[in-house]
Amino acid sequence: MNGLIMDYPLTTTTILKYAKSAFPHKKLISYLPNGDRHEYTYYELEKRSCQLANALKNKLGINKGDMVGTFAWNHYQHVELYYGIPGIGAVCHTINIRLSSQQTEFIINHSEDKVIFVDATLVPLLEKIAPKLETVEKYIIINAPENFSTSLLNTLYYEDLIEEQLDTLEWPILNENDACGMCYTSGTTGMPKGVLYSHRSTYLHAMTILSPNAGNYSNDDVILLIVPQFHVMAWGFPYMCLLTGSDMVMPSLHLQPEAIVRILEREKITKANGVPSIWMGVYEEMKKNPPKEKLALEEYLVGGSALSASLIENFENNFGIRGVQAWGMTETSPLGTASRLQKKHKDLSKKEQIKIRAKQGIEFPGIEMRIVGDNGKIAPRDGKTMGELQVKGAWVIKSYFKTNNRDNFTDDGWFRTGDVSTIDTDGYMEITDRTKDLIKSGGEWISSVALESALMAHPKIKEAAVIAIPDKKWSERPLAAIVLADISKPISDDELKEFLSSDFANYQIPDNYVTLNLVPKTSVGKFDKKEIRRLYAEGKLN
Amino acid sequence: MNGLIMDYPLTTTTILKYAKSAFPHKKLISYLPNGDRHEYTYYELEKRSCQLANALKNKLGINKGDMVGTFAWNHYQHVELYYGIPGIGAVCHTINIRLSSQQTEFIINHSEDKVIFVDATLVPLLEKIAPKLETVEKYIIINAPENFSTSLLNTLYYEDLIEEQLDTLEWPILNENDACGMCYTSGTTGMPKGVLYSHRSTYLHAMTILSPNAGNYSNDDVILLIVPQFHVMAWGFPYMCLLTGSDMVMPSLHLQPEAIVRILEREKITKANGVPSIWMGVYEEMKKNPPKEKLALEEYLVGGSALSASLIENFENNFGIRGVQAWGMTETSPLGTASRLQKKHKDLSKKEQIKIRAKQGIEFPGIEMRIVGDNGKIAPRDGKTMGELQVKGAWVIKSYFKTNNRDNFTDDGWFRTGDVSTIDTDGYMEITDRTKDLIKSGGEWISSVALESALMAHPKIKEAAVIAIPDKKWSERPLAAIVLADISKPISDDELKEFLSSDFANYQIPDNYVTLNLVPKTSVGKFDKKEIRRLYAEGKLN
Repeated sequence: MNGLIMDYPLTTTTILKYAKSAFPHKKLISYLPNGDRHEYTYYELEKRSCQLANALKNKLGINKGDMVGTFAWNHYQHVELYYGIPGIGAVCHTINIRLSSQQTEFIINHSEDKVIFVDATLVPLLEKIAPKLETVEKYIIINAPENFSTSLLNTLYYEDLIEEQLDTLEWPILNENDACGMCYTSGTTGMPKGVLYSHRSTYLHAMTILSPNAGNYSNDDVILLIVPQFHVMAWGFPYMCLLTGSDMVMPSLHLQPEAIVRILEREKITKANGVPSIWMGVYEEMKKNPPKEKLALEEYLVGGSALSASLIENFENNFGIRGVQAWGMTETSPLGTASRLQKKHKDLSKKEQIKIRAKQGIEFPGIEMRIVGDNGKIAPRDGKTMGELQVKGAWVIKSYFKTNNRDNFTDDGWFRTGDVSTIDTDGYMEITDRTKDLIKSGGEWISSVALESALMAHPKIKEAAVIAIPDKKWSERPLAAIVLADISKPISDDELKEFLSSDFANYQIPDNYVTLNLVPKTSVGKFDKKEIRRLYAEGKLN
Repeated sequence: MNGLIMDYPLTTTTILKYAKSAFPHKKLISYLPNGDRHEYTYYELEKRSCQLANALKNKLGINKGDMVGTFAWNHYQHVELYYGIPGIGAVCHTINIRLSSQQTEFIINHSEDKVIFVDATLVPLLEKIAPKLETVEKYIIINAPENFSTSLLNTLYYEDLIEEQLDTLEWPILNENDACGMCYTSGTTGMPKGVLYSHRSTYLHAMTILSPNAGNYSNDDVILLIVPQFHVMAWGFPYMCLLTGSDMVMPSLHLQPEAIVRILEREKITKANGVPSIWMGVYEEMKKNPPKEKLALEEYLVGGSALSASLIENFENNFGIRGVQAWGMTETSPLGTASRLQKKHKDLSKKEQIKIRAKQGIEFPGIEMRIVGDNGKIAPRDGKTMGELQVKGAWVIKSYFKTNNRDNFTDDGWFRTGDVSTIDTDGYMEITDRTKDLIKSGGEWISSVALESALMAHPKIKEAAVIAIPDKKWSERPLAAIVLADISKPISDDELKEFLSSDFANYQIPDNYVTLNLVPKTSVGKFDKKEIRRLYAEGKLN
């Protein structure tokens, strides 16, 4: 029997119209590439998104299902693109500006972008590959300075495009299962793969991440979006902020620690997102130049890589700012879990509490997770048994764009994350490693992530990455690549082994340590272990 | 272009399976009708819901689309019914135990319930009408004491029904648009009307009310469900608690103020729901017998009637417990708005703050609202212009069960609430009256709700209801019916007029006051103005 409830599709337009109606005065604040501070309201955001949508239809000939690329920083125009493009049924394809030219070229041709909206500061990256782009008919330049010039053909300025367009629109009623956005994974092997989000998945993900068990965002928050809009839709925050009526602050290219701290101070930011390396930098900057007044910042949400126990502890002890670990992937929109303490943990020692908070945490409603062991069986939730983390849910992909490859999916329809994890009896998931980075020594697993966390807790160590190296006897052994906190204060191998011995079994402790100036990172700031392995193989580490 | 996201229907079974997986140890605690305290986990809830679902299919022949009635208090068996019945595609029809025999008979015959699950203490109410029930094949008795006997035919005990059934089930994959639950409005005019909820609307409503702008519930909360499960699905809380992983506490028939305070103390309740009259009683009980230790209770969510500014203030000043005003109707699942302060209000006086908090508040995402004036035009959001509140959204009905009557719907598909409201520039909606109770005196509107709130703030007054009475000169005039706080301390008409004169225009102040022992209430605890008008018309008020 059918329910008698109104048909009400969950779309990005639903979100935009909601914010205009319920929170017309709330603000979208942008620190533009040229340093200017720009501010307007959600009411104006809707108006300008209408203008953009009208221009896409009337001036650029964009139709339902067309791909429209963006190659841009976080700012209000990019938010207008997040709503204007899917609002007329087209797909907002955010292109990662940090990929190689070869990958960027591949992505744009593969997705068949008809138009690309590009920040003036990023135009040089596209100029290099423009002759090889097969489908792009026009480039729309955002934030162009005076006397801007480019070798790109068929360009138009963003403000010229939308001016004179009506700022009203009878937004079309869309099918919530249609695509609204696309990102490519920054895959460490092979070419990037396309991930297409639907309106429905975008809405449900945004609605879920604002809940108290997840990010806990309300209309009283001022939220800084450090995660780039070209990276998994900025974790859905440009949608979430409108649903919750919080102010949204966009830093564009001002991502240096000093710049971030200045924005945190000036805008009285209460919550923010970002990968751990950003927060590491912010922490060090604040230690060096402590803010004059206590920041309004209560909490930062971290994903992408593991938040180390030492960073959680340092930020909290020194500045009273809470780090919250979340987990996700491009293929999961991205957020699937977060780790917060519960009342039952309140009598634990601080150290034990932080150990729980450094886990990836409990799945959100709408997401299911399981651990599957080497034997193909679902592992018990005992906090010990490791296996591959597999997920399914309302914002998890069922396939990649334009490919029938099913390597990442199980026969019964779960997505294979490639992460090796445990789940404890309270439901907290912990990633112990990536399948491909996992160290198996003498038939026993060694968690490189656990070793890295432990090493980074040493006062003399700034960063540490652990990889597997071939070993005749044990088949694999861990190698630790470390970055010193102070280059004038080295640390001996024995000192490190001694330091690790309290928390690890003998066989788990690396025999070999090398010192780096910097841990190589991927385009999204994760430790690039492939690159470290390559350096090792080429004899360049010692 | 289609998104590439997994198909993942939003159903009550999704919710049940989620809690079993993510929060297996969280508790459902019941104070049973006989006074026993019962406790088990969400893991066990899923197990027993499987047993129930298997019994419904195997022993009672319930099929997809069948109506299954419940006539019961809040307790774990009733929660099992909330999941077990819709889990196999049938509809959980919760029958309001407080209606007249005539209405109850009408509802059961109209809905065509095949089976009714009934609490032993409520059996006498059904015995009276059983001979007239046309479709009921069986009565399942819950919480039967020893030596229970009844004149009902075809009865079975709940525990006998489910025992020996498997506690596992491959829950069927349901269409999220199928019905999962049904309630009848306790309509003040005519016979009750049926409202059918879908799985999707139930999920989205539950997911939304846990957000920080709404109820703000996390896995750290212990939530007392005072709103009966037979009243608009207990405001969706039995679904919400599982989504958020909070403990759920059920009082069954222990709804007297002393009993509620005892449960608040013993279970360390952090949040609760309920209509204002319940909280008025709890407040008075706590004043009389102050709890020895400060309660864990942080907040109570109120709906159904307006929460008076004086109750908000008294509870907060005396006990540090926050009242949160929400608004909704059976036809809106029910919750559509809530009122919380924002940063911009922090410099207002306490009195001004409470004035905002006593409004019905801002609509939730998924809900749209508008005010339509007598001229049929959408009224501005200026906090002054009154009109009928109309809503639409993802958990608002598009029609009533088995009727084509469109009186409550506009031509463009909005639901007409029958409430007269304003919306201010910050988006806070305030109900000024019911259309049918609205007082129009000399061409000017008078808000009976505002008068009632003001009168109830007088220390000598416990309750006040204001109705319109016919007037030759002004067409209508307000009449205030008051209940004294202390019968030995009467209050004069002049004293009342003087008291109101600071906040109201002369024409708005009632000329006439009558004293009652008790304000008549509807079955769901609202002031029954129809009854007051009837008493007045019959000359029984003076």
